[in-house]
Amino acid sequence: MPILIVGSVALDSVKTPFGEANDVLGGSAVFFAAAASHLAEDLHLVGVVGDDYPIGDLDFLAERGVSLEGLERSNGESFRWSGVYHYDLSSRDTLETRLGVFADFEPRIPDAARGADLVFLGNIDPRLQLQVLDQVESPAFVACDTMNFWIEGAREPLLEVLGRVDAVFVNDEEARQLAGESNLLHAARWIRERGPRWVIVKKGEHGAILFGEDSVFFAPGYPLEVIFDPTGAGDAFAGGFFGHLAAQGGDVSATALRRAVIYGSAMGSFAVEQFSVDRFRSLTEDEIAHRIGEFREMTSFERATSEVMDHG
Amino acid sequence: MPILIVGSVALDSVKTPFGEANDVLGGSAVFFAAAASHLAEDLHLVGVVGDDYPIGDLDFLAERGVSLEGLERSNGESFRWSGVYHYDLSSRDTLETRLGVFADFEPRIPDAARGADLVFLGNIDPRLQLQVLDQVESPAFVACDTMNFWIEGAREPLLEVLGRVDAVFVNDEEARQLAGESNLLHAARWIRERGPRWVIVKKGEHGAILFGEDSVFFAPGYPLEVIFDPTGAGDAFAGGFFGHLAAQGGDVSATALRRAVIYGSAMGSFAVEQFSVDRFRSLTEDEIAHRIGEFREMTSFERATSEVMDHG
Repeated sequence: MPILIVGSVALDSVKTPFGEANDVLGGSAVFFAAAASHLAEDLHLVGVVGDDYPIGDLDFLAERGVSLEGLERSNGESFRWSGVYHYDLSSRDTLETRLGVFADFEPRIPDAARGADLVFLGNIDPRLQLQVLDQVESPAFVACDTMNFWIEGAREPLLEVLGRVDAVFVNDEEARQLAGESNLLHAARWIRERGPRWVIVKKGEHGAILFGEDSVFFAPGYPLEVIFDPTGAGDAFAGGFFGHLAAQGGDVSATALRRAVIYGSAMGSFAVEQFSVDRFRSLTEDEIAHRIGEFREMTSFERATSEVMDHG
Repeated sequence: MPILIVGSVALDSVKTPFGEANDVLGGSAVFFAAAASHLAEDLHLVGVVGDDYPIGDLDFLAERGVSLEGLERSNGESFRWSGVYHYDLSSRDTLETRLGVFADFEPRIPDAARGADLVFLGNIDPRLQLQVLDQVESPAFVACDTMNFWIEGAREPLLEVLGRVDAVFVNDEEARQLAGESNLLHAARWIRERGPRWVIVKKGEHGAILFGEDSVFFAPGYPLEVIFDPTGAGDAFAGGFFGHLAAQGGDVSATALRRAVIYGSAMGSFAVEQFSVDRFRSLTEDEIAHRIGEFREMTSFERATSEVMDHG
């Protein structure tokens, strides 16, 4: 079941308490694809890089079955982001954002990807997200990500996007900012009233929440020994979410979406264990299955049948 | 199965965005007992009030089966706390804390309560917590609460308490401060190495985590339409936790403790729906059962059998 991801393809420079990495693979589309490729085949990435991009470094995505036909190469500099994470890794300072060729990006969806059943609009200008929606046929499930920059600076097109997607991925601050509501339940309701049937709120170490019509689902944050580099966790989360939906044949029932949130949480937790997308180079099926089992174990509070027998 | 709770019995004055209440029932022992009394019988409260305390207001606890034999009445002012919650209710300013008769409190456990199987040491001076431990016989399960004030100012006696309890209740900031570790998993391990087999970390709207030897259990925060007054949520949590253990005949297995965390979370969520302990005056068994069911629903991501049949 084909997935289309449109987003940034960047070079990140990151400093964390554990070390630093310079000009390494980054961007929402790259993290998404790296994570999703472990669960699904037939992924189509659309984005842009400059002529300085170490394009060969993306081979590992191609080898994992990701089509890079929609990756445009323009003259100029690639999108670069650099940041420093603080001691407790829950906050960061952006040192520099250089849009480069991304400033003039106009997404063109290859014919092979226009019929994708599942579409993820990474965190880019909502006007570009609308351009993508104009080019796809009739996807079964479309979600978008966004951020404070667009909530403040491109509110109208963002609201238009909301009216055309099935789900929104935001963090808790973004949800509150978008809705102008401090209560997360109210904020999610406000967003849902603008169009999307589902709101997925990512809360970092505190987990994630899926808000639906009359349901709320909580996924815990995976308790990591070391959070090596938080960059890309949210995009890997979305990749895991979509990858699971695709692997299950596009079942987008409430129960399927709950499981997808767990797969997203698992992929987000892997992403932060190493710099860049490096964890996804070595990740195995067994490791994924084991972590999904841990999520099940972390939230289970039912007595086993034998215990019910013992303790009445 | 008898429960002993030792803690503060206070008069709270609270201002929230939704209103204010003056000189209303408060204190860790009162919130704990109000919550626990909905799940368990045979509760023994030990604390102190001044001669200004509206002692008749505690009748509702006595009527719910809480023994107030250990509630000392001293000459002088009762413990008073007043605070203001900010707009988003996640932070507050303490306006005033007047210890009154609490300053000279020396807990004396009535004979009838010394044999209690379950003992909760509310958030009081760890030196007093030690005095309580010296007076009880051989409880099956003892837990303590604490706060930044004691972590900074009474570290040695607090560490001695840790060596003598089965479980510690703290919030996430307290856990990090106590252990000097920003990673919560490491902080919980540090605390466990000081004695307690279990660490229960309360995270307010983000839920609660139970850390054991090689297990981690997450309970979600209940998504409330309105958080009317957050005061006492943590003590009601502990009351729900202990109340469930008592109701289950003192089963303190890992699975029983997980369920106890869910009951604690439910009681904490009720506490904040009204000022003071008012929600516990009207709370019914059906409401509790319904909320426990909601917690189950909020964390379940398994396919129902029929779905497995349908979707393979």
